[in-house]
Amino acid sequence: MLVVQKFGGTSMGGCARIEAVARRVIESKKLYEDLVVVVSAMGDTTDDFLNLAHYFGARSNQRELDRLLSSGEQISSALLAIALESMGQKACSLSGSEAGILTDARYTKAQILDIDTAKIKELLAQNFVVVVAGFQGISPSGEITTLGRGGSDLSAVALAGALHAGLCEIYTDVDGIYTTDPRIVPRARKIDEISYEEMLELASMGAKVLFNRSVELAKKYNIPLVTRNSFNSTEGTRITSEEKILEKPIVSGIALDTDQARVNIVDALDYPGIAGEVFGLLAGAGINIDLIVQTVARNGKTDINFTVPKGDLEACLHVLKNLQNIGSIEHDDKIAKVSVVGVGMRSHSGIASAVFNALAKENINILMIGTSEIKISVVVEVGVAELALKTLHTAFKLDL
Amino acid sequence: MLVVQKFGGTSMGGCARIEAVARRVIESKKLYEDLVVVVSAMGDTTDDFLNLAHYFGARSNQRELDRLLSSGEQISSALLAIALESMGQKACSLSGSEAGILTDARYTKAQILDIDTAKIKELLAQNFVVVVAGFQGISPSGEITTLGRGGSDLSAVALAGALHAGLCEIYTDVDGIYTTDPRIVPRARKIDEISYEEMLELASMGAKVLFNRSVELAKKYNIPLVTRNSFNSTEGTRITSEEKILEKPIVSGIALDTDQARVNIVDALDYPGIAGEVFGLLAGAGINIDLIVQTVARNGKTDINFTVPKGDLEACLHVLKNLQNIGSIEHDDKIAKVSVVGVGMRSHSGIASAVFNALAKENINILMIGTSEIKISVVVEVGVAELALKTLHTAFKLDL
Repeated sequence: MLVVQKFGGTSMGGCARIEAVARRVIESKKLYEDLVVVVSAMGDTTDDFLNLAHYFGARSNQRELDRLLSSGEQISSALLAIALESMGQKACSLSGSEAGILTDARYTKAQILDIDTAKIKELLAQNFVVVVAGFQGISPSGEITTLGRGGSDLSAVALAGALHAGLCEIYTDVDGIYTTDPRIVPRARKIDEISYEEMLELASMGAKVLFNRSVELAKKYNIPLVTRNSFNSTEGTRITSEEKILEKPIVSGIALDTDQARVNIVDALDYPGIAGEVFGLLAGAGINIDLIVQTVARNGKTDINFTVPKGDLEACLHVLKNLQNIGSIEHDDKIAKVSVVGVGMRSHSGIASAVFNALAKENINILMIGTSEIKISVVVEVGVAELALKTLHTAFKLDL
Repeated sequence: MLVVQKFGGTSMGGCARIEAVARRVIESKKLYEDLVVVVSAMGDTTDDFLNLAHYFGARSNQRELDRLLSSGEQISSALLAIALESMGQKACSLSGSEAGILTDARYTKAQILDIDTAKIKELLAQNFVVVVAGFQGISPSGEITTLGRGGSDLSAVALAGALHAGLCEIYTDVDGIYTTDPRIVPRARKIDEISYEEMLELASMGAKVLFNRSVELAKKYNIPLVTRNSFNSTEGTRITSEEKILEKPIVSGIALDTDQARVNIVDALDYPGIAGEVFGLLAGAGINIDLIVQTVARNGKTDINFTVPKGDLEACLHVLKNLQNIGSIEHDDKIAKVSVVGVGMRSHSGIASAVFNALAKENINILMIGTSEIKISVVVEVGVAELALKTLHTAFKLDL
């Protein structure tokens, strides 16, 4: 089986850790036969490079910045290949460009357009472990590009897709995906298996082990994604398609997002297209909206409630100043969103009321509610957010 | 005029220094119009990388080592381009490969085969300062190679040759080439102008500002080479062809080499071909011989004296064990070689006797003598080497 493994910056943080990664790679090579390993830059290398560049001003030339940043993975990939070779394992490192990762020309946030796998396949056929520098590619005009945050994960998943890999393993410094944030709820459990869809909902809510771009790509290629800990032998969490998951829990996990602010447009004139007008303005300004609630109109007036990332609040309020025919605009950034996620909801009714009842028992006031097929989100005051998280974690029997 | 400038590791050691280099480059751009800048890795980067690699064993995979090492210049070239752009100067960094530097496939000590200057010329035509990562190239099969010690100088000179540059400036942390080592002879003077030939003799004797490979290449292309200090505005030393030097001093400089050992083959049977046999054996073992002196035979026996680098002494003695028909082999590594160099010797007689007389006055015993058209070397005991150097420096009126 062809497997793509990805090791993050912490896993590659220093020679001793790279040596440990090399040992694990050699074990995996015995197990899987064909192995492509994608690596991030060592430890804080990327931040160190950004600091160097910032010496010369806040905004560096983007072409040159990408050349600077991409060298971090050139270093770590060469070192891992050196470590593997020193242990007797044939290994060959490739830059993103050499690995055939073609991107568009948007420096620092390029998107992968295509992958030419010829060179990797040739090396695999010669029994090399192919070590690919993550986070980078080459533009159609032959310039080095980088893929932005989470870029090495994306390199790994995209390579897995292009190579029709049987599995893509993402090694980090945590054991996998948890039912909720273990720093807040110590009784949070590691999830053994979860669907792409649930993972997407949990990730966007703050479970930052994997970026959504990577999960979406894995879903597109239907490649099982495993996140696991490079520092131990725990099995990790398998992210796969819903059909392949035998036991579908009603609730898989609960996410907390404290990075949202709530905006309330009070007494807007209720005419057809008012919502389209409001959110068109915001979309035009590049502001992402999350939950939206519109009340039933009374006396021809309606309230439009929504949440935005805290960082976008100011821009949002600025844009809305131009709105005609509204009463006032209120906002509140002392809120948090708690989301209950599970594919089992599709076939189970009563989950929403179970959420509301559990919170009511603890006297937690719900400010907003939003639902999707596999998710129920409630907005609460930030002061009771952790209590809400713990309450729901217990109510849905997720505690260890 | 098209000018190639090269900045070494000390000149690029940290952001403040890179900023100073950028300011100098911008001044030069105004002066010269077309500017290609070759950079070394920042400060001790290359040594740091070697230490990382050595963690995994004394001998790293050479392909991967070159990939690791070459990233040092990728970093420094991108940072210089970022600095230039931040000051409003259009700049574009290129790796050795992108700059068209084609080498053979000998990792860690590749030789430049050819340079395709198309991309550099295209960028120069668009008024970019082209910043080239030194010390590296690409092999015919598309693999990154490095050029070995002094490699960035070589990149600069080779680019200057391929681009028919009017000048190649090598920036280091010293003011230029001195009449002798100023650490030993404080009254040593900076040389304003020197011929390639003299420079080659001085460099091979230990004046380590420029490696011979670079001087030879500059001589081949007949490109004036200037070494100067990046930390001040001193004019530096111009290395050029003998014809272009108006005032030809009889003695340009005096070099001290304490890295040689003397080997004496005593009472070798004197038959035609004995010297060929001895030095054939040593050449076969890759041992470089410097001075050779063979005495006139007496009673059919002769002494063969020569010097070898100290590091090769053991190997040399091992090889010579197989020699037949000799008396004994003596060796002595407590020696030093002092060489008086000057193109003026070609037209002046009496320089050799001036050397011997000056040393005799100080009671310095000469162990061996070797001469060439533009050089007289004497081997003395290491204990009197510095006295010999000072004596000759004064005798030939080189003192400040």
